[in-house]
Order: sequence, then structure tokens, then C-alpha cells
Amino acid sequence: MPQGFLYSAVEAAIKKPGRLDLALIYSERPSQSAAVFTTNSVKAWPVILTQERAAQGRLQAVVANSGNANACTGPIGREHAARMTELVAQGLGLDPELIGVCSTGVIGRPMPIERIEAVAPALVQGLSPDGADRVARAIMTTDTRPKKVELTLDLEGTPAKLLGLAKGSGMIHPNMATMLVFLMTDAQVTATALKGALQDALPTSFHAITVDGDTSTNDSVILMANGAAGGPEIHGVFTPAGRTFSAAVEQVCRELAQMLVADAEGGTKAVTIRVKGAQTEMEADMVALSVALSPLCKTAFFGGDPNWGRIICAVGYSGARIEPDEVDIFFDDQAVCLNGAAVGGGAVAAAEEVMRRPSFTVTIDLKQGQAEKSFTTSDLSYDYVKINAEYTT
Amino acid sequence: MPQGFLYSAVEAAIKKPGRLDLALIYSERPSQSAAVFTTNSVKAWPVILTQERAAQGRLQAVVANSGNANACTGPIGREHAARMTELVAQGLGLDPELIGVCSTGVIGRPMPIERIEAVAPALVQGLSPDGADRVARAIMTTDTRPKKVELTLDLEGTPAKLLGLAKGSGMIHPNMATMLVFLMTDAQVTATALKGALQDALPTSFHAITVDGDTSTNDSVILMANGAAGGPEIHGVFTPAGRTFSAAVEQVCRELAQMLVADAEGGTKAVTIRVKGAQTEMEADMVALSVALSPLCKTAFFGGDPNWGRIICAVGYSGARIEPDEVDIFFDDQAVCLNGAAVGGGAVAAAEEVMRRPSFTVTIDLKQGQAEKSFTTSDLSYDYVKINAEYTT
Repeated sequence: MPQGFLYSAVEAAIKKPGRLDLALIYSERPSQSAAVFTTNSVKAWPVILTQERAAQGRLQAVVANSGNANACTGPIGREHAARMTELVAQGLGLDPELIGVCSTGVIGRPMPIERIEAVAPALVQGLSPDGADRVARAIMTTDTRPKKVELTLDLEGTPAKLLGLAKGSGMIHPNMATMLVFLMTDAQVTATALKGALQDALPTSFHAITVDGDTSTNDSVILMANGAAGGPEIHGVFTPAGRTFSAAVEQVCRELAQMLVADAEGGTKAVTIRVKGAQTEMEADMVALSVALSPLCKTAFFGGDPNWGRIICAVGYSGARIEPDEVDIFFDDQAVCLNGAAVGGGAVAAAEEVMRRPSFTVTIDLKQGQAEKSFTTSDLSYDYVKINAEYTT
Repeated sequence: MPQGFLYSAVEAAIKKPGRLDLALIYSERPSQSAAVFTTNSVKAWPVILTQERAAQGRLQAVVANSGNANACTGPIGREHAARMTELVAQGLGLDPELIGVCSTGVIGRPMPIERIEAVAPALVQGLSPDGADRVARAIMTTDTRPKKVELTLDLEGTPAKLLGLAKGSGMIHPNMATMLVFLMTDAQVTATALKGALQDALPTSFHAITVDGDTSTNDSVILMANGAAGGPEIHGVFTPAGRTFSAAVEQVCRELAQMLVADAEGGTKAVTIRVKGAQTEMEADMVALSVALSPLCKTAFFGGDPNWGRIICAVGYSGARIEPDEVDIFFDDQAVCLNGAAVGGGAVAAAEEVMRRPSFTVTIDLKQGQAEKSFTTSDLSYDYVKINAEYTT
């Protein structure tokens, strides 16, 4: 575990009793930070507040709750978000401006702030180097399991650690289930370099599971570095240590992102839609998203049905420049459609085999250019409907 | 029924035995016509062929099948589409160029043309003025009921009829279930006026159920007028008869469109998303579609859960200019969110009552301008998943 970080989680009864729902992450030393937030026009109060504070690149603690999003709660919501940081600031002896706050849960209900007030002292007192697993559990909503990734880095001979915690299982696009990600490292990294590493990590991780364009009111990713491991100070990717660090952030983010899809609401499979041969990257993107979004494709993935007709149909309405009779479609290595028409023989049966795997790749080769893009999506199951039809009531 | 039109439907065993799957509509007199087709880049062969022929505005018959889309079938698919019209042309004594062809069903499988050859004579022989109901049944795929709307028009004292037949129950957007619509009238209308009436009818009917941007490979709407009723010849909307006719086409299209949503795959409710107060019509459109598309909103509609947080979230990521704290949301007349925050009291319980209705309207008032747009969508149910996970296999 990265040195100098403490973790705590308690029951505040924001969710049903008996479940952890309030968490605190704290760096004992001053830390540098970077953060990215939802692009939704409707932002939860914790996002608005933390975005302001994160701009200074010095967040040293984050308080987070599940069970209530503190979004669309009127002006009192901003006070509640600030109050959450003040409640722990006292105990930590820290300026509240150095504390971020994240919430996830139901939109439009006032935060039960008195319940947080009641347990805030216990939350601070519970801080421990071993509490990360409890934090990962406390931020879960419809997630079926906590998500944690840990990595050891060799920074020019100095070992350092990078720990990632995440929640967010409603990754079925358009994604409105909040994604919260906390990344802690004891490497010594400037806020600018953290920002660069985080931005570089997004396209192949959280943005490759379609968590960007259609974001929730509360999505937040916060990266903190406290330098407790010593070693070279990283200013960017101009040194070997910088490149190692940046690659580590990308790897942890990518693994967390795949865990999010694997734990998608009701999802039984993680399906990567890989588009190649597009004229531009934007068009590769449009095609991949069109398929990754299509309820008809996603239900066919659930049914284990290699119905490539639905796939080529989604390709066709994506808006990208394509030639229908040049499109190839594969399930892993198994071709099902070549030059826009069916592959005969045992292709369908072989593709059905592929679809029994817990994860597989649908490759769509447009043969119009060199641009590529991959998205990972989940399937659309009965349980997705069940979970989402019965969520608030 | 409009005079001078004959209908027939038979079993060709393209679908499972025992179900009508091949239909013919024929005007005994030369007729004028207009048609619109899918905008998908991947077009089925019947669409490509009929689009060419429809350009002349003189279609006099349409042959249609369900069970096979004749899309992505390679060059032989074009021959099969042409052959379908030739097979009935012989029996009708009609130039095949005057015959349209429509197919709906599975993509990527060769049309079993020999089965159609075998029953083509019986199809022609079965033509009768009373066969429209059989045609409506023969074009069904996952539809649970045939869709027919009939209207009598008073064209300056001359009574005329307009009959509409439609199929297409996969209206859950992005729509890839084929929509086929056939409109027959015995009014006397020029091809140009038919085209105008059809185009004018789309925005409030088939385009208002989101059947346009995300279209299937086979969507087709064909309007034929044979003048058998006599009366004034209609050249456009510059005369009372022309306006009456145009309004009638819009009404029939709107009723058919609502029937399509009401019979949506697995749908239990038809929900109209009405956006008002947008700065531009395009933005009203973006917001309405964003909500109408959202799986989270659609599952909440299914669950009868007035979860307006999901709605305002979809409003927020729509891309339209909005002020989150000015948004109002209503379920029919019941406000649940005013100025971006919850309405207290019994609002939620009252909204739950509204959601028990088979159809209701979600009004979203952005209060940013005067532009409006409505879309009707269905809910996302277990049965939607069932139908679509098990369709081809």
C-alpha cells in the first residue's frame, strides 16, 4: 500500500442500516492532486465544490458517501457538501479547502446531514493504513463487489505504490450510474504531472467504456500523490520515472475500467467492440459507440446470439462513412460477415461458442482507412431491467 | 375501404409454417405514388430497388414478405428482390417497374426465393377487396397485433377513403426493427402532392417516435392514390380538398405511429416526452431524444418509478443549453421537480399514480426559450430483453 495514506469507513445510515456508506481517505502529508469530473450540465453539489478546490492541485483528503447523490437538492445541497468536509476537517486539523467530497446515490433528495454529523468523529478516529477495503465497500451502490487495483512501481530504483479504488456498476451506456475513482500514490509527483498522467489514462480506460459523453451528475476521478516513498520528483513524461508513473496510472485505470464493465448492472459478459479501418478516429468512435449502445446488439450479446445483422445495422446508422459490402465482422477470431454478407459453414456455431466466454471482442473492419477505436460494453439482461426498474422505490 | 385496391396474403413458409408471410397490394387502376425509405447506409435490396422505382411516382402494386429482410445477402439479393416483383407482375399483367417490394425479418440470410415462386400464383389469385386484414397480419414480425387505420375524407363533396396498414413493434430506440407502412387512397392526387403530404406527415408521426435517425435496413413507407373515388384532382395544399387530404394523411400516420409505440417490443406503456422552453427546436429535439433513449429512464417508466433524477440527468448530458436550477418536470399535470429540485408533499405518490396509466406525458420545461418537441417512446421491460435475446436463435 502507498505509504502515508489512511482510510476509514463507517455506517451513517444514509443507505439501509448495516451497510458502510461513509468513507474518508486522508494523506498524512501534504499531497499534490489532479481530478476530472463529469461533463454533465447538471452537476451534483459535491462535484461543483470539489472541482473548485481541486483546481489548486493540493487535495489531501476526500470524504465520500453512497446512498445519496446530493444532486438537484437546491442551494442547501452546497452547504451540505461543504459541511461534510468541515466535519472531517476539524478532526483532521486540516483546512477544508484541501478536502474533496464525493457523493453517489439517489438524485433529488436532501442529504441527511445530521446522520453524517453524528458519525463524523468516529469516521476520523477510525482512520488506519489498512482501511482501503472498507472504503471500497462504502462507496458501492449497485456494485456487486468492491474494486481495488494495486501496483508497485520502480522509479529509478525507488519502489513506490499506486492504489486505485472505484465504484460504478451501471456502466451500460448511456451511463448515469455514478463512477467514483480514487487513486493514491506515495510517489513524488507535481500536480501538473498528475494532471497529464490522468488525462493520458482516460482514452483507454474510463473513456473507453463510454463513461464520458453520457455522464452522471456525480462522476469524479481523484488522483493524490504524497511523495512519502521519496525518489525522484516527477514533473512529466520527460524522464524514465515519469513515463513509468504515467504508464502505471494508465494500467490501474484500465484495470479498474474493465472491472467496472465486468460488474455492470445485470451484465453477464464484457464485450469489446473494436472498430478498425475507419477513415478517421472520430468515425471509428461513432461506429464503436453505435454498436456498444444498441439495445438490440446488447440483448443479442446476452442471448449468446451472433446476430451480426444487428451489428451491421448499427454500423449503418452510425453516421460514419462506410461501404456496406466491404464490412467484415468477427467474434474474436471467428468471421461471421465478410464483405457485408454471411460467412457460411459452421461460422455461426463457432461464433456462438465464442459468445459463451465471459469476455470477447467483436471486431468490425470497415476497410476504409487506418483509424481504430475500441469500447468495452456489457450486455443487456433481465437483471439490468430488474435493478433499474426497482432502484429508488 | 378505398375503391379499386385488392389485397392478398399467403403462407410461403419464410416464417414458421402456419403463419401468413407474403402479401400483395394491388391497385386495379394506374395509381400515383410517393415513398420514403430508411436513411441507414446499409440498405436492404428491396429498399434499393423500390427506391429506384418509386422515383417515377407510379407504383401500382407492392409485394411484401416477413421472416427475411433480404439485407446483407450479396448481389443475389438484388435478383431475389426483382424476382419477387416479376413473379407477381406476370399474374397481374403489370410492368414490374410499377411494382414495389418490401421485406422484413432476419438480416444476412438468403431469401428462400423458391418458396415464393411456389406460392406466387396463389398470391395473385387470392386478391380481393377484403384482404387488407390478412396483409396487415402477413407483414408482422414481433408485432403482437396487426395495425390498421381507416379514414373517410370529404373532398369538396366527394367521399374518399384512406387506409393505412403498418408493422414494426421494435420501436424502442435505436430502432432497428423494420417499420413498413402502406397507405392506400382512392382520392385523385398527383405524385407531387402525395410526396408533399407524406413529408409533412412525418415530423409528428413516424419521426416523432424516433424512427428516423436510427433506422433499420428496411424501413419503408409507401403511399398510393388511384383516383377511383373521383372528385377534384389534388395538386397540393392550395385547395380545401388538398388541405383535407394532407391532414388525413398526417392523422392516419400519427395514429399508426402511436399504435407502433403501443405495441413496442415488451412495452407496457407509451410515454410521450414533451420538451418545451428550449432555445431552438434542435435543442428541444436533443433533450427529448436523450430522455426517450435513456435505458435508465425507460426502466424507471417500466417500474412505475417517478425517478426524475434520471430524467434531469439525461437532460443534462443531452448537449442542449440548459440551466439546471430552472428545469421543471411533470408527469402529466403532476409536478415532481420545479427549478431543478424536488417537489415535496405527495408529489411522488401522485406521480406514481400517473405512471400506472397505459400512456402518459413527461413534460420537461427548460424555460430558456419557445421551442418545443415531443417524442413518444416505450418502456424497457423484461419482455424487451426476452424478445430480443431470443430472436434469431
